[in-house]
Amino acid sequence: MTVEPGAEFALIGAHFAGLGAAREDVLLGVGDDCALLRVPPGQSLAVSLDTLVAGVHFFPDCDPHALGHKTLAVSLSDLAAMGAEPAWATLALTLPASDPAWLAAFAAGLGELARAHGVRLVGGDTTRGPLTITLQLQGLVPPESALRRDGARAGDRIWVSGTLGDAALALAELQAGRDPDAALRARLERPTPRVALGRALRGVASAAIDLSDGLVADLGHVLAASGVGAELQLGALPLGEAVATRADWSLALAGGDDYELCFCAPPGRDGEILALGQRLGCRLTPVGIIRGDGDALRCLLPDGTELNPTRKGYDHFAGA
Amino acid sequence: MTVEPGAEFALIGAHFAGLGAAREDVLLGVGDDCALLRVPPGQSLAVSLDTLVAGVHFFPDCDPHALGHKTLAVSLSDLAAMGAEPAWATLALTLPASDPAWLAAFAAGLGELARAHGVRLVGGDTTRGPLTITLQLQGLVPPESALRRDGARAGDRIWVSGTLGDAALALAELQAGRDPDAALRARLERPTPRVALGRALRGVASAAIDLSDGLVADLGHVLAASGVGAELQLGALPLGEAVATRADWSLALAGGDDYELCFCAPPGRDGEILALGQRLGCRLTPVGIIRGDGDALRCLLPDGTELNPTRKGYDHFAGA
Repeated sequence: MTVEPGAEFALIGAHFAGLGAAREDVLLGVGDDCALLRVPPGQSLAVSLDTLVAGVHFFPDCDPHALGHKTLAVSLSDLAAMGAEPAWATLALTLPASDPAWLAAFAAGLGELARAHGVRLVGGDTTRGPLTITLQLQGLVPPESALRRDGARAGDRIWVSGTLGDAALALAELQAGRDPDAALRARLERPTPRVALGRALRGVASAAIDLSDGLVADLGHVLAASGVGAELQLGALPLGEAVATRADWSLALAGGDDYELCFCAPPGRDGEILALGQRLGCRLTPVGIIRGDGDALRCLLPDGTELNPTRKGYDHFAGA
Repeated sequence: MTVEPGAEFALIGAHFAGLGAAREDVLLGVGDDCALLRVPPGQSLAVSLDTLVAGVHFFPDCDPHALGHKTLAVSLSDLAAMGAEPAWATLALTLPASDPAWLAAFAAGLGELARAHGVRLVGGDTTRGPLTITLQLQGLVPPESALRRDGARAGDRIWVSGTLGDAALALAELQAGRDPDAALRARLERPTPRVALGRALRGVASAAIDLSDGLVADLGHVLAASGVGAELQLGALPLGEAVATRADWSLALAGGDDYELCFCAPPGRDGEILALGQRLGCRLTPVGIIRGDGDALRCLLPDGTELNPTRKGYDHFAGA
């Protein structure tokens, strides 16, 4: 229990004051006991908080600009999965020491993505300790059009955005001491949160979740919340070239960190969804169907046989 | 970069789901990508985030029930200083390992204080790593009656609640290997946030701040934000018996962690403030006056001489 190096850490705080987009609904930002924010009538507040720990969620020596980007991207992805419009962030940064170059790069990476999504950093806390980053992002969504996990119904089609397994492959390459190519590495280190897609799916999708833990685990949360089962067509999964050549289903099914969206919608919305994907320049692929007869998730191989008979069977992917 | 022990940590999450008071304005709590919260019209959202790091802000072996209490108390104190009504919390808990007894006690300490203040835990993230706790608390306050730091005016009286320096003395005792008596120790480990006082000071106080870093540092923030100076009468400072017998001004002036409120108000409000203190059972003491002639904080000893000539002069307290 030591005294904080006050002046030094106050300086660090100054790095983050005013980061991100200017917003008129910030009545009071960094520099008082609380930030004061105006929530417009008709909107509910959507709140998500995520922690990244050095050595657990990222390599301690990773590029701080990319880390700043990813810190916000992870939370933007949660808001996207809710159909919410991002607005305000707060940042808790625990640092072993003050490193101005590292901080400047981290702040730049976070700030660029914040500005791109209209997000303002309104407060935070900087402390000394093992490198740990917690960001809370707050956004707005009319409560009746929020995309929840519990709305999937039998007969709904299951969709995913982008491609699956890229981040897991990049991580496997890095862990094996190999250098993944830049595009693949960016999928792990600089994920693209699907904010515009989530927004556009209001009133279209019956349920949504973002893919942070892998398709099987995350779709499993939707099934559990909605009380339904599902059938995935593995042959339909959208795979990037590098992942496709590996012929390893676990990359796409259990690989985390893709930060794509998985959502459900009645088949009658197919045309609308495909058009929406084209308008946003975002690949959207139907990968299966929600079933009402039991809560199991069945994964069908291209030859029609089943990869695993019950949801329990996917547990062996968890450590893959 | 290791894979999270998913099941184990999901279990930890379950410890915190539903913690705190029931609130009708929680449209969606723990268990989706975001929590969804309803902000009533006419209220602005007051947001505060604080991090506690083991070995920096608390002894790693400290009582987990007290730590749970303090985690929330620190943020409640920020909301109190804003005059805001606490509402919703999110918790980021980074733990070296799963320790069910520790977690149960931590959750109980946090939950008891949450219920007492009508706060609901609506989300969070549990990760593995060095023990670090970040809590974000959100509350409500009409924007026009929020207590800010920048409203102090020349002639305002300066008030503090409770007594000063107790937490610093308890810390000094513990660091010296002595065991402070239970009441003194509670002032460090189980601070009482002045939520009802902050709420009652709406429309009365011209500025307010909570005392987390010590009176000189925290009042200094008010002076800087308001562009004014001040004169403190050290003989008027409310000291508990243990602190008074030490005759060490630095305990009350630079000791942090008291979580009392320091606020300013025109002298015309004196009677109202004293009545308010009586109603709340909270000692309120006038300790000085805001001056318009320069931005210095002068500390006057009981004999009328000055303890330090300029605000700069207090820096030597910072490490005390």
